[in-house]
Amino acid sequence: MVSFATSLTKESIVDVEGVISVPDKLITGATQHVEIQVRKLYCISRAVPNLPFNIEDASQSKTEFKKAEESGEQLVRVGQDTKLNNRGLDLRTPANQAIFRVKSVGVNKGRQFLLSKNFVEIFTPKVIAGSSEGGAEVFKLDYKGKPACLAQSPQLHKQMTICGGFDRVFEVGPVFRAENSYTHRHLCEFVGLDIEMEIKEHYYEVCDIVEELFVEIFNHLNDNCCKELEVIKLQYPFQPIKYLPKRLTYDEGVRMLKQEAGVEIEPMGDLSTEAEKKLGKLVSDKYNTDFFILTKFPLGIRPFYTMPCHDNSEYSNSFDVFLRGEEIISGSQRIHDPEMLTKRAEQCGIDVETISTYMDSFRNATRLHGGFGAGLERIVMLFCGLNNIRKCSLFPRDPQRLNPLNDPACLPMTILFLSFFSFHLIKP
Amino acid sequence: MVSFATSLTKESIVDVEGVISVPDKLITGATQHVEIQVRKLYCISRAVPNLPFNIEDASQSKTEFKKAEESGEQLVRVGQDTKLNNRGLDLRTPANQAIFRVKSVGVNKGRQFLLSKNFVEIFTPKVIAGSSEGGAEVFKLDYKGKPACLAQSPQLHKQMTICGGFDRVFEVGPVFRAENSYTHRHLCEFVGLDIEMEIKEHYYEVCDIVEELFVEIFNHLNDNCCKELEVIKLQYPFQPIKYLPKRLTYDEGVRMLKQEAGVEIEPMGDLSTEAEKKLGKLVSDKYNTDFFILTKFPLGIRPFYTMPCHDNSEYSNSFDVFLRGEEIISGSQRIHDPEMLTKRAEQCGIDVETISTYMDSFRNATRLHGGFGAGLERIVMLFCGLNNIRKCSLFPRDPQRLNPLNDPACLPMTILFLSFFSFHLIKP
Repeated sequence: MVSFATSLTKESIVDVEGVISVPDKLITGATQHVEIQVRKLYCISRAVPNLPFNIEDASQSKTEFKKAEESGEQLVRVGQDTKLNNRGLDLRTPANQAIFRVKSVGVNKGRQFLLSKNFVEIFTPKVIAGSSEGGAEVFKLDYKGKPACLAQSPQLHKQMTICGGFDRVFEVGPVFRAENSYTHRHLCEFVGLDIEMEIKEHYYEVCDIVEELFVEIFNHLNDNCCKELEVIKLQYPFQPIKYLPKRLTYDEGVRMLKQEAGVEIEPMGDLSTEAEKKLGKLVSDKYNTDFFILTKFPLGIRPFYTMPCHDNSEYSNSFDVFLRGEEIISGSQRIHDPEMLTKRAEQCGIDVETISTYMDSFRNATRLHGGFGAGLERIVMLFCGLNNIRKCSLFPRDPQRLNPLNDPACLPMTILFLSFFSFHLIKP
Repeated sequence: MVSFATSLTKESIVDVEGVISVPDKLITGATQHVEIQVRKLYCISRAVPNLPFNIEDASQSKTEFKKAEESGEQLVRVGQDTKLNNRGLDLRTPANQAIFRVKSVGVNKGRQFLLSKNFVEIFTPKVIAGSSEGGAEVFKLDYKGKPACLAQSPQLHKQMTICGGFDRVFEVGPVFRAENSYTHRHLCEFVGLDIEMEIKEHYYEVCDIVEELFVEIFNHLNDNCCKELEVIKLQYPFQPIKYLPKRLTYDEGVRMLKQEAGVEIEPMGDLSTEAEKKLGKLVSDKYNTDFFILTKFPLGIRPFYTMPCHDNSEYSNSFDVFLRGEEIISGSQRIHDPEMLTKRAEQCGIDVETISTYMDSFRNATRLHGGFGAGLERIVMLFCGLNNIRKCSLFPRDPQRLNPLNDPACLPMTILFLSFFSFHLIKP
C-alpha cells in the first residue's frame, strides 16, 4: 500500500478507510492532534503527473516572493494568464476558494436585505432587439433572422416592470459590455445587481437603500466570513474598508478636489479615474470612510433617462457611489413623463424609434421611480482590496479572453514549460 | 376638484392628501371600513385616455367568460399577444402581480435551502467560445472577431467549478435555447437553476437534494404565499399539487405504462410528451403525488457526459423529475474520468477539440460529482397549474417574440381596435 500511496500524483482524489486515533506526539502538518491509521486507500481520480502548475506556487503571496528574493531562494511565479487558462486547477488555491465564498455570502445577504424591504426579485431578458440604452458598444447577434444584442443593463426592462405596477424590484444577472477596456476593473461580462424602486418624495430614498444595503452586506461579511477574509489576506494583504456612509454633492466634491488637492475639473464635466481616486483619498482622510455617495451630477454627463433637478435643470437627480476611491454604482431618478423623455432622448441623439416600446410604457402612467446598478465583481474586488477584477470572476471575459483557454494552441506549451520548472525547482 | 378628479384617466397615478375617517355606513368597494376625505389631489402621471386595454378585461377568468356567455353579456377578450405586446400594462393585473411574487419567493427559498446545505452560489459566463454541449441549436454571436455563442446551460462551467475544488455549487441565471419550439412550455431564454455537487457514494444523493429542495420550496410557498396563490386561482383556477416525493426506475415507469395504460415505449427509447403525461396520471392515481423522479435511464438517450451504470452500461446514473406529468428537471452523475469522457464524446459524435478546455479540467483529477438543471418558469407554471410558460416570464422570448412589441407596425392598430371596443362595450 505504501508503494501505491507514494505513486499517487499530487491533487489526485482518494477515498481513505482507517482508524482515527490520537497520536502520542503532535504531528507536523495541518491536523496536529488527530491521525488516521489508513487501512484501505482508493484512488478515485488520478491527476496527471505534471500539473500545469502547483497549487502551492499559485498560492504564494507578495510577501513570500519578497522574502524569497531577499534570501536568494527562487520561487515559481504563476502568471495571471496561466492561472486563468487553467482555472479548474487555479480555483483550488485557498484564496480563490475564499473569494468566491465571500461573493456568494455577500450577494445572498444583499438579496435577503432587499426582500425584507419588500423588493421583488425579477429576471429580465438578456437578448434584446436593437441596441440597449446606447453609449458603449454592444455584442450583436442574430435572433431567428432579426437583429438583436445582449443587454448592457436591465435598465429599460426593470423600469418597465415598475410601470407594470411593482413598487420595488431587483435583479442579479449577467450584464454584457463590448467595450475595449483593458483595465483592472472592467469585464466584458459581469454580474450586475440592479435595483429600481418607487420614489415617494425624493431620490435620496434610493441613496438610503444603497447605504443600508451595503452597510448590511459589509457588516455581515465581516461577522460571518472572518476565516475567508483572513485566507484572502494571507495571499493578498489588504486593509479592511471603513464604510461609515457619507454623502457629498458633485459641487462639494469638485470644490474639495480644487481646494484641498489643487485638482481642476472641467466645468460640469465628469471626474476622471484619477480625480475619483484623489477624491476618495480626500474623503477618507477627512471623514474617515472609504464609502461615500456623490449626488446631484450635472445633467449633461448622465444618460438621457435621468431626471433633471426640479430647481436647476443644469443638474440632475443622480448619484455615483464610491468604494476605496473607485466608482461602484451609478444611480438616479428616472424621467417618468413620456414627453420629457422623448425630448431628452432627442437631445442626446438617440433614435426614439429604437426604444419605442420603452417609451410607450410610460404612456400608461408610471409612478415616480429611480434605481441604480452595481457590478458584483468590482465590489468584491474593492471590499477585499484585490488589484484585479478578474480575480472575482470564475471565468472572466475581457476583450481578449473568451475561454479559460483562449488560444488552444498555447496550452500544451504552457503545460510543458511550467511542469519543466516545477519539476526542477520544486521537487526535492 | 371634483371636475379635476373626474377628468383623470384610468390608471393615472395620483397623490392624495386628506383626512382618514370611519364612515357611518359600510362603503361599497375594496376598503369598506375606512374612507379618506380628500383635501388635495395631485396627478403624478397621467395615463393616455385610451389604454391598449383595461386591466379589468385582462384580469377576467374563464369562469367569468363562461358566465357572461350564458347570460348573453359580451366581455372584451384580451389575447395573449396583445397582453405581451403591452406587458408594462398587463403586469398590473392581480394575477400577474402574484405570479412574479411567487417566483421571487420560491427561488429565494430555494437559495436559502441550498446555502444551508453548504452550496456556494456561482455565476458562470453566458458568452462562450464554440457551441455549448451540443444537441440543440445555439444563438451565435461575434465576440471581438471570434465565433461565440450563448450558453445553452452552465453544464461545463459548473463542472469545471467542481474540478476547481468546490464541493457543492448552484447557479440561477439565464439559459438560451435557439430551438424552434412553439409549445406551451418552451422559451428561447429562461431562468435556469443549476446544481452540481460532490457525490460520496451514489447519485441518489443528488435526487435527495432535488426532493428536499422542492418539498421545502413548495411548503414555503403554500405557507407564505397563500394570498398570491388565491389571487392566481381567481383568474386561473387550479388544484394545488400533491408533492410527496416518489422514485421509480425508468424500467418500472415503462412497465407501468404498458401494463396499466397499454402504452408501448420503443425499447430503450425516450418517453414522448404524451407518454410522460400518461405516466404522471398513473403515478398520481397510484401513489397520490404529482412529483416523482424517474431514475436509471438508458445511456443511449442521455448526454455524452452521463455516467453509465457500473453494473450495466446500457443504463446510466441519471434521472428526470416530473411535476403534473411534465418534465421539470434532468440530472445525472457525470463522467469524471477523462479517458471515458473522450470515448463517450466520440461515440456521441462530438468533436472533442471543441470542448478541450472542459476535457482538460478532468486531467487534474476531480471528485465524483453529479447535478441537475431546472427551469424556473416551467416550475412556477406547473406549481400554479398555468397553461402557458409565457405567463411566468416577465418579457418572454420565443422564436417569434424578441420584444414586448415584436412587430412595431402592429401596435397602433391594436390600440385603436381595443380602445374602440372598451369604449363601446365597457364604458357606461
